[in-house]
Amino acid sequence: MFQFIKNGTVTSVQGFKAAGIHCGIKRSKKDLAIIYSDVPCNAAGTFTLNKVKAAPILISQKIIANKNKVKAILVNSGNANACTGEQGHNDALDIQSSCAKKLGINPDEVLISSTGVIGQLLPIATIIRGVNKIIGSLSSTGGLDAAEAILTTDLRLKSFALKVQLSTGVITIGGICKGSGMIMPNMATMLAFLTTDADIDQPVLQELLLMSVNRTFNKITVDGDTSTNDMVILLANGNSGIAVLNDTDDYNQFLIGLNKICEEMAKSIIVDGEGATKLIQVTVNSAKTIFDADSIAKSIANSPLVKTACNGADANWGRIISAAGKSGADFNPLNTNIYFDDLPVMLAGYKIVLDEDKASKILNKDNFSISLNLNEGDCSATWWTCDFSQEYVKINANYRT
Amino acid sequence: MFQFIKNGTVTSVQGFKAAGIHCGIKRSKKDLAIIYSDVPCNAAGTFTLNKVKAAPILISQKIIANKNKVKAILVNSGNANACTGEQGHNDALDIQSSCAKKLGINPDEVLISSTGVIGQLLPIATIIRGVNKIIGSLSSTGGLDAAEAILTTDLRLKSFALKVQLSTGVITIGGICKGSGMIMPNMATMLAFLTTDADIDQPVLQELLLMSVNRTFNKITVDGDTSTNDMVILLANGNSGIAVLNDTDDYNQFLIGLNKICEEMAKSIIVDGEGATKLIQVTVNSAKTIFDADSIAKSIANSPLVKTACNGADANWGRIISAAGKSGADFNPLNTNIYFDDLPVMLAGYKIVLDEDKASKILNKDNFSISLNLNEGDCSATWWTCDFSQEYVKINANYRT
Repeated sequence: MFQFIKNGTVTSVQGFKAAGIHCGIKRSKKDLAIIYSDVPCNAAGTFTLNKVKAAPILISQKIIANKNKVKAILVNSGNANACTGEQGHNDALDIQSSCAKKLGINPDEVLISSTGVIGQLLPIATIIRGVNKIIGSLSSTGGLDAAEAILTTDLRLKSFALKVQLSTGVITIGGICKGSGMIMPNMATMLAFLTTDADIDQPVLQELLLMSVNRTFNKITVDGDTSTNDMVILLANGNSGIAVLNDTDDYNQFLIGLNKICEEMAKSIIVDGEGATKLIQVTVNSAKTIFDADSIAKSIANSPLVKTACNGADANWGRIISAAGKSGADFNPLNTNIYFDDLPVMLAGYKIVLDEDKASKILNKDNFSISLNLNEGDCSATWWTCDFSQEYVKINANYRT
Repeated sequence: MFQFIKNGTVTSVQGFKAAGIHCGIKRSKKDLAIIYSDVPCNAAGTFTLNKVKAAPILISQKIIANKNKVKAILVNSGNANACTGEQGHNDALDIQSSCAKKLGINPDEVLISSTGVIGQLLPIATIIRGVNKIIGSLSSTGGLDAAEAILTTDLRLKSFALKVQLSTGVITIGGICKGSGMIMPNMATMLAFLTTDADIDQPVLQELLLMSVNRTFNKITVDGDTSTNDMVILLANGNSGIAVLNDTDDYNQFLIGLNKICEEMAKSIIVDGEGATKLIQVTVNSAKTIFDADSIAKSIANSPLVKTACNGADANWGRIISAAGKSGADFNPLNTNIYFDDLPVMLAGYKIVLDEDKASKILNKDNFSISLNLNEGDCSATWWTCDFSQEYVKINANYRT
């Protein structure tokens, strides 16, 4: 049994508190968030692969690598603390220490995260005043405030929670995230913070998170860019008293639940992508290897020609098969079928069966799928992307000028 | 000595004739081109790496692989003969045979090439009538007609010729090309045909062409797509009586000349890219390896965030260093300098020295460079790209609808 909770968030999970406030990095919007658990949590995390890593990435990555127990995640928006050198690193450590001191815990129990402008030093005094204030605001209903405070120019709040039935009871997973925002000078930053009351050892938790991220957050693309600040964190406080052990049915159930909530979070980022008007699922089936399926799905999801055609509801299957062909994957295009939702478009042997009217109806929806069947093996992969609109270019060309 | 010839083209090279006519694939524009040499030529070629290869690609690729002597290149625009299966393959062979018969030569002496709509069968009778007609039009001044006939929706004619001083005399290299065009359903196709009167053995010619293509045509990007029909051909008829042998000064001079004309041709494709308003050179210097330099330059040149910022003349260095960081290259961003033309923007240690007014002046030009100095080694790479405009999205979203 899996059940999404209405208005669910990180504090829908027992034992977690959160808060989100305006501390003064941004002019008036909320810009500081905290997630907190009284009980020390096992913590798993995945971090940007960009060589240019913001200071908070380096600091939080070390905590996860050391398998430290964690009690808090402190996040600021409005400033990424990236490309800020030694001063930026020291600033991040100072903020972490201040937060830990105020909470009466060790600095190593506080994960930190930033998103926003790069190449500018943090307003350190402002943030430390904010830290002192936000801890007084911690509440078991503060999840949505935190979800708001991590946004940059996202247009929508992204907050979810899911109940998962395991063999001995129900556990909950909550999550908040942010997607591509526009800051000067910016890039899209993807942040996601998840909580659960399941009791899961750190190595198992880390493995579960990696598997889920690889199937969800790592399968979305707005414009193929990877930020300096991308981060996904999952905290498990064990408050439910329900243990999830390796190689059990409960492990599989938990993984399915984690995939479900991460998929919803990932899709919510795409739907709110810059200039996006459509959510497009790209699925490749019956490939010889996962690598082949994944390369083709990724190549189609990242192709500006496919994404612009989707924007114009143009049933341009030639761009789809060409994007598949340039992916580097091993397949024979002569065996390939292409579908829009369930509508066959091209069948093996380049047989074109496209019904333009039916295709147009599908491509004009705000949510549809492009599927390829390679007829060569048993492997599949799915990516999610958005269309590429004139608005995307407008947002990204003209923000500063 | 290198000297570009005004209005130069493939027939600026002695011994080559050409023609370009309207045969009826397109409504009224020229759509059939031929380049011809009485003397059999050594022929070199490079072809699309897309797994989806049009029929003429497969046929011409075999001729080059067999090191056959070649006398003609026949090119149609308006129909790519791609994704057309066995019928498309037979059609291509028929056209090749008709052309050879009319010229009184073997089919294997005729390279063929197509660009345009994919997934539609060629109007075979129309083209064969055109072939019979075009051979009567062959002329030693027909290069510009041929240059016109290979275009799809390119806005500008792309034709060049260069004189190169070798130790025993002057040889000429001529070339015509086409870039990204819009056909229904389409992708960008890049075609380039070069002629020279130098006398060069096939294996040496092939090596020279590969080296040049890797530094020029393979370093341009409008949108990161690789077509089903991309092809570059170089014919050498030896008419000058000047031999270019391996491992000689003349070999090096010829290579420099070939690089020069290929670079001009490649840049002309970018300048005429869909929606392009600016030609941007991306150079990475002092990398540890060529691979590192190339990966970073390519990542920057392909980044929609960098390309949209260039469109808006936004000095967004954060997007540049981030695109470098996600390239997969091995470098330490802390050592990196970034320049717009000669203007330093970011120096080692993330020291920001950007003068916004000066940067804005550079980024508002229609031709400028982004350079990175990694300060880690001796290797360099250059790519060329264009900006990403709202017009690009408009063209590609709305062509069919």
